[in-house]
Amino acid sequence: MEEINRYLSNKYIGKDMFEFIKKLFPICRSITGDGVRKTMNYVKEHIPLEIHEVKSRTKVFDWTVPKEWNIRDAYIKNSAGEKIIDFKENNLHIISYSIPVHKKMTLDELKPYIHTIPDFKDRIPYLTSYYKENWGFCMTQNQFESLENDEYEVVIDSSLENGSLTYGEYYIKGEIADEVLLSAYTCHPSMCNDNLSGIALLTFIAQTLSKIKTRYSYRFLFIPETIGSITWLSLNEKKLKNIKMGIVATCTGDSGIKTYKKTRDGNSLIDKIVEQVLMHCGNKYNIMDFFPWGSDERQFCSPGINLPVGSLMRSPYGFNGYHTSDDNLDYMSEDGLCDSYKTYLEVIYVIENNKTYVNLNPKCEPQLGKRGLYRMIGGGENYPFDEFAMFWVLNASDGKHSLLDIAYKSNMDFRRLKYAADVLYKTELLKIV
Amino acid sequence: MEEINRYLSNKYIGKDMFEFIKKLFPICRSITGDGVRKTMNYVKEHIPLEIHEVKSRTKVFDWTVPKEWNIRDAYIKNSAGEKIIDFKENNLHIISYSIPVHKKMTLDELKPYIHTIPDFKDRIPYLTSYYKENWGFCMTQNQFESLENDEYEVVIDSSLENGSLTYGEYYIKGEIADEVLLSAYTCHPSMCNDNLSGIALLTFIAQTLSKIKTRYSYRFLFIPETIGSITWLSLNEKKLKNIKMGIVATCTGDSGIKTYKKTRDGNSLIDKIVEQVLMHCGNKYNIMDFFPWGSDERQFCSPGINLPVGSLMRSPYGFNGYHTSDDNLDYMSEDGLCDSYKTYLEVIYVIENNKTYVNLNPKCEPQLGKRGLYRMIGGGENYPFDEFAMFWVLNASDGKHSLLDIAYKSNMDFRRLKYAADVLYKTELLKIV
Amino acid sequence: MEEINRYLSNKYIGKDMFEFIKKLFPICRSITGDGVRKTMNYVKEHIPLEIHEVKSRTKVFDWTVPKEWNIRDAYIKNSAGEKIIDFKENNLHIISYSIPVHKKMTLDELKPYIHTIPDFKDRIPYLTSYYKENWGFCMTQNQFESLENDEYEVVIDSSLENGSLTYGEYYIKGEIADEVLLSAYTCHPSMCNDNLSGIALLTFIAQTLSKIKTRYSYRFLFIPETIGSITWLSLNEKKLKNIKMGIVATCTGDSGIKTYKKTRDGNSLIDKIVEQVLMHCGNKYNIMDFFPWGSDERQFCSPGINLPVGSLMRSPYGFNGYHTSDDNLDYMSEDGLCDSYKTYLEVIYVIENNKTYVNLNPKCEPQLGKRGLYRMIGGGENYPFDEFAMFWVLNASDGKHSLLDIAYKSNMDFRRLKYAADVLYKTELLKIV
Repeated sequence: MEEINRYLSNKYIGKDMFEFIKKLFPICRSITGDGVRKTMNYVKEHIPLEIHEVKSRTKVFDWTVPKEWNIRDAYIKNSAGEKIIDFKENNLHIISYSIPVHKKMTLDELKPYIHTIPDFKDRIPYLTSYYKENWGFCMTQNQFESLENDEYEVVIDSSLENGSLTYGEYYIKGEIADEVLLSAYTCHPSMCNDNLSGIALLTFIAQTLSKIKTRYSYRFLFIPETIGSITWLSLNEKKLKNIKMGIVATCTGDSGIKTYKKTRDGNSLIDKIVEQVLMHCGNKYNIMDFFPWGSDERQFCSPGINLPVGSLMRSPYGFNGYHTSDDNLDYMSEDGLCDSYKTYLEVIYVIENNKTYVNLNPKCEPQLGKRGLYRMIGGGENYPFDEFAMFWVLNASDGKHSLLDIAYKSNMDFRRLKYAADVLYKTELLKIV
Repeated sequence: MEEINRYLSNKYIGKDMFEFIKKLFPICRSITGDGVRKTMNYVKEHIPLEIHEVKSRTKVFDWTVPKEWNIRDAYIKNSAGEKIIDFKENNLHIISYSIPVHKKMTLDELKPYIHTIPDFKDRIPYLTSYYKENWGFCMTQNQFESLENDEYEVVIDSSLENGSLTYGEYYIKGEIADEVLLSAYTCHPSMCNDNLSGIALLTFIAQTLSKIKTRYSYRFLFIPETIGSITWLSLNEKKLKNIKMGIVATCTGDSGIKTYKKTRDGNSLIDKIVEQVLMHCGNKYNIMDFFPWGSDERQFCSPGINLPVGSLMRSPYGFNGYHTSDDNLDYMSEDGLCDSYKTYLEVIYVIENNKTYVNLNPKCEPQLGKRGLYRMIGGGENYPFDEFAMFWVLNASDGKHSLLDIAYKSNMDFRRLKYAADVLYKTELLKIV
Repeated sequence: MEEINRYLSNKYIGKDMFEFIKKLFPICRSITGDGVRKTMNYVKEHIPLEIHEVKSRTKVFDWTVPKEWNIRDAYIKNSAGEKIIDFKENNLHIISYSIPVHKKMTLDELKPYIHTIPDFKDRIPYLTSYYKENWGFCMTQNQFESLENDEYEVVIDSSLENGSLTYGEYYIKGEIADEVLLSAYTCHPSMCNDNLSGIALLTFIAQTLSKIKTRYSYRFLFIPETIGSITWLSLNEKKLKNIKMGIVATCTGDSGIKTYKKTRDGNSLIDKIVEQVLMHCGNKYNIMDFFPWGSDERQFCSPGINLPVGSLMRSPYGFNGYHTSDDNLDYMSEDGLCDSYKTYLEVIYVIENNKTYVNLNPKCEPQLGKRGLYRMIGGGENYPFDEFAMFWVLNASDGKHSLLDIAYKSNMDFRRLKYAADVLYKTELLKIV
């Protein structure tokens, strides 16, 4: 598992992830439809993704998989024949799941179907109407204010028909059946931090793990938000018992500080692992208690599912520009993307290496000197051995404390203790529980 | 129980309570005697109080009910026949339980029987000598300093004879036998915050509850402090098992901030309820850990009784003017009285409504939209439903968390969650444990 | 145990301890050898110390008792025959356990054998090489810089041969077999705070306890650090079960604030006792969590021994001048020594008196007045009885709370509660559990 360190020094990863996002940005995704399929196929170019299709009308717990929505074109033309709003310029212009429309309307008739953000005059809002048939256009307040009294031709060339819900899954078998769940959602149209950053991050993390021998098994889900996690959970209930922890990846691409939202329990192993990594990351960070809204952790952490799933982000949903056309490529940061990748790998490093040892010489300290592990002149300069970390591992390894527990007790970085434990293990002063 | 809200908007309650206090102020109360009887009879004009008499010499745990004390008149006259101290002007002038006296005394002979507060020259102290026969006068330091060498006629026209201890009790039967105990003491002469405020508050609260159907039963005690609670506890030990929580009402009438003194355990249900109400009251407040002096919670929380009884006050005993003639009608605040009344009702609202629910659709979120409980355009403005409160109730209602627990988890006001729970209950998404 | 109070007012104790330290200062101690024997014999002049000799080569857990080291003389002479470094001036000049040497060396040949502290030019460092045969001289950086190119005569007249390890032990039998372990180390040459202060303190504490009847038994150990505690633990494993708590005495003689390093568990009885004493000591103090380096608590708190042993110090190891010639008599403070003595006695006072009582009148308060324990005029001045402390003891003495627990609950000084408990016990309101 030390192979992981090679990937931590990859200088190009931020740039690679940004290029990945740029490729996916123009696609009009929704909770179903060809936009998702295109996105999944692009991910599949990087990892051996299994792509699943779940038929419309399938019952999934309290919900039903909806009809599949596809859109080819949409615009509003004025009487001079000019497109004053064009879906092809920005797919946020259409309320997602808008039904087909083709009619002439006066401005007054049209107005109730137009949505803006009055306080931010140059942002297009992102709106959806998945579960009630509806249609509408979204535009900037500036565009809206420039509309003149006229007769407009309104066209939405969409279809809403029985079809299927598409999602991607990639399972990496490790030494043990215990699983780590990593999930990102795939349902947003042209938005970056809230959507594409998570897809990019998990694609690159999955690619990295596919090249490494891991102890845990890893399951990656690329699913439409809410209905996708509900669908997956409903169809895979038998697999849940193996999931020992998980993280929802979203909002991982901007330049903000790292933010961790805890699991429902608030004291799960994954909570302790992520907090430990953040404590020693050298930057500011933020830890939030669980709250029952946000992303798919809502479903993973519902009382009848109750998986220990947190969410590790940068600026969380609600950031300035959230759910608008401002969450675009300019909002992305290569450094932020890179730091998210490295932080997730560091979390995985702790997951993989958090063993519990027993000190085989528990009565008084073992004589480190005779094993070549200690300074020979007391009071003088150190050997390259980290005696303080060794002392902590020896003192606390009574079979009840994992390395992670010792990291909290000692306020030392996990890796420092891990290296000390490796040295002690080699000299047969420790065994693994 | 939503009927309670009607009473919370009563604008006249502060004034009504003040008038009540004004009526009782001149009466000379003590731990026994006609002053208490008059007070109880006045309370009985408002609520169907049961008035009990317990004979002198009755053994009550380690104590004995004392002789009954009554006083008709008391004064000191100078040689010119002028009353220089007159009990009829202020009943604090006499040490409570003073034995009868009629004698002529020089100033020097009299001095040991006179008590003042040297540091506050215009306050008459309030003193008692219930358990050792004694007599004495209390006056201001100014009065004391103006006394001249003279022969004084000293008269205390009191009686200390076998009789009885008087207390009032009012029991409201609710749906369940579990009881809430609310207790005030009745033994202080002309003092307002320390005594009358509690009697007034509990009278009006009792009157309100008598008009409402309640789940819990409520027991109101109007008892002389210490000996009264000891007497009641000694004679009613069998009833204690029903008492699930309680509050001692004292010092509830001034303009100070609200102060809650916790139960002996410090983590009782009533502690959590009162703290929750105070957290969301919109004003500063103070929470004190239990300490084994103060008022009747000393007895309720003694180790062999150990009832979960706290005390909800404004400026607690020890306020500026405590146990002196300055604790008079001027110290009262109609706003303070009103706020105490509303706070007690709010506490009762939580007591009555703190149910524990089970989410009947625990696997993933239920689809609120199809039940008409959710925004139809995602990202748009809200329906009048409070989805955040609904999410909390659904997520945390696993049968282990009451609404109060969820209020603490979510940092939301109890009522906000209660309304959400009502909506969810009506759509059959919840059942009550 | 109230006899202890007499010793707390001893004005001369600081001076006496300083004189004791002055006597021992010049002796060259190490982990074995005649320096330790001389030191132990001097301690034996004050208390009936048992002196033990453990043969070289004895196996003690993972360690082996080393050869005995003795030194008679050591110096470096220049070609003019002047001693430029002389062990007889300061025994820190020699690395402890240096093997015999007698040779002529150029300055360049000599340099690798000379140790200094470049950042503190007038301090001689203290170095040891117990477990690897080696030799060397320590000097100030100033001395080192003044060395000229010359031929030097280097002499270390030492011996390293099979012999024994010497330690002292003094056991005071109390009423019960439960033991308190008090340990100091004896292996440092001329250093005061780090070594002699602990020996002095425990000698005087032992002397005091030898004159008092105690409930607990007390075991005093005067041992070389690390190898001494390992040796004692290895040879006395059967005795460990009686040890209920302990303190390592080191760095107890300077003018710094008191510092307590907690036991491995961090929540042991001794931790609570010492913290309670420090909270009410009237001075600043410092509490540190356990860490697995420092002094002999490393061995006592190793996972297979796991005794509840803390360390009560003033400026802990690492103080300015630590392990150098600056830790000399000038660093000692008579006030600090005195305060350490009194603090240890105060800790022992709590150990001895921390009883758990049961209130024999648990239902409501007992009537203190009829027992002469209460003010007779309510609201007036106090009797000399401390009613607040009595109320706490009565309220909390349900058999589950010791006096120490009540001290924490009430935030009152332990002695204040102890005196109240004594009064209540005499009036038969309490029994001892």
